[in-house]
Amino acid sequence: MTDRPIDALDRAKGKRIMVKLKNGEEITGILKALDLHLNLWLDEAEVQKSETKVRMGTVLVRGDTIVYASPV
Amino acid sequence: MTDRPIDALDRAKGKRIMVKLKNGEEITGILKALDLHLNLWLDEAEVQKSETKVRMGTVLVRGDTIVYASPV
Amino acid sequence: MTDRPIDALDRAKGKRIMVKLKNGEEITGILKALDLHLNLWLDEAEVQKSETKVRMGTVLVRGDTIVYASPV
Amino acid sequence: MTDRPIDALDRAKGKRIMVKLKNGEEITGILKALDLHLNLWLDEAEVQKSETKVRMGTVLVRGDTIVYASPV
Amino acid sequence: MTDRPIDALDRAKGKRIMVKLKNGEEITGILKALDLHLNLWLDEAEVQKSETKVRMGTVLVRGDTIVYASPV
Amino acid sequence: MTDRPIDALDRAKGKRIMVKLKNGEEITGILKALDLHLNLWLDEAEVQKSETKVRMGTVLVRGDTIVYASPV
Amino acid sequence: MTDRPIDALDRAKGKRIMVKLKNGEEITGILKALDLHLNLWLDEAEVQKSETKVRMGTVLVRGDTIVYASPV
Repeated sequence: MTDRPIDALDRAKGKRIMVKLKNGEEITGILKALDLHLNLWLDEAEVQKSETKVRMGTVLVRGDTIVYASPV
Repeated sequence: MTDRPIDALDRAKGKRIMVKLKNGEEITGILKALDLHLNLWLDEAEVQKSETKVRMGTVLVRGDTIVYASPV
Repeated sequence: MTDRPIDALDRAKGKRIMVKLKNGEEITGILKALDLHLNLWLDEAEVQKSETKVRMGTVLVRGDTIVYASPV
Repeated sequence: MTDRPIDALDRAKGKRIMVKLKNGEEITGILKALDLHLNLWLDEAEVQKSETKVRMGTVLVRGDTIVYASPV
Repeated sequence: MTDRPIDALDRAKGKRIMVKLKNGEEITGILKALDLHLNLWLDEAEVQKSETKVRMGTVLVRGDTIVYASPV
Repeated sequence: MTDRPIDALDRAKGKRIMVKLKNGEEITGILKALDLHLNLWLDEAEVQKSETKVRMGTVLVRGDTIVYASPV
Repeated sequence: MTDRPIDALDRAKGKRIMVKLKNGEEITGILKALDLHLNLWLDEAEVQKSETKVRMGTVLVRGDTIVYASPV
């Protein structure tokens, strides 16, 4: 079966990923679930804003706000 | 059954969540209802604009204006 | 039956609500009608631009321009 | 029958309305026709840009560029 | 039959129209064809950028980039 | 048969076209293929950024990033 | 069979491509998979931000954030 782009993230379930957002922020977290809209459920999430890092625990990231995502 | 990303918020019904908006504002409130578009009904809501905090009571947040949401 | 997010506004029909727009303006008015796109019909509407308040009477607000709405 | 938000404009056919656009401009004109996307046909239209007013005659305004519209 | 908003442009086929774009530019040209997305085929087109006017001949304007259009 | 707006580009297959993008850049290239979303396959493409010109060879331009396109 | 625009990228599978994003960043990587939304799976990816180059390994790029893509 052919690989789909979303499989790049699907294989990273249970691992930490970095998500680049359209508003310039970067979030990292353990990928718990994702769907075809690229909505993401992250656990142990942290958001990096310029020089500050904020812990947020569980986060739902809306898919249409994502630029790219990458296992770290 | 597999977890869906939206379940991260669905489990937070009746609890306070923080919502980051595309216009930079942050709203917190008790999550009363949500749908698949991520439209949210918040009670006892407060919006944080730069250094001011404004109480708003019941608020309907349009889903397409959300960057991420997180139980607090 | 489960509450839907839009019910937060639907219960406010005939009452004054505040609507925050994506262009930064805030409109208040008596909610006369709404639909699933969040298009709103407001009567006795007033728009707040920075420090000026402008009376507009009947207004149709396009749903996709709304950030959040709240009964006042 | 329940009122729909678009009825707020539909009742204004043949009358002058003011339309606020997402690019900040304001257009006024006699409402000749509208559809569910909020596309508008205006006659005797004038656009207000900061301090200048420009006459345009017949104008088709694309619905997705509208913030709100109001009979004047 | 009721007029549709797009008829305001449809009647202008073969005539020169002015098109205001979301990026601030204005294009004029002879309207050759249009569709329901408001995609436009213009001939003998000229684009006005601030103080410069550039001739372009045949142009396809993407409908979702249009703010309004008006026969001139 | 009536002309469709996209025919303005379809007739230009195999010829050089200029494409104006929403980010302000201009790309020229030989039009090899296009679809109804206005996605374009250009060969021998060059992108003009302010005063620099960069050669890119084959390029896929995403349709929703296009303002207008014109045979040169 | 007629070429589709997406074939311009499809032929580049297994090769390095450059992707220009709407936020101004440029990503290069080995194209592993793509779909009709232009979502891309890149391996050995590097992102170029102004003067810095950051290695990211595997990356999923969301299609709607792409301006254009080109084999290098």
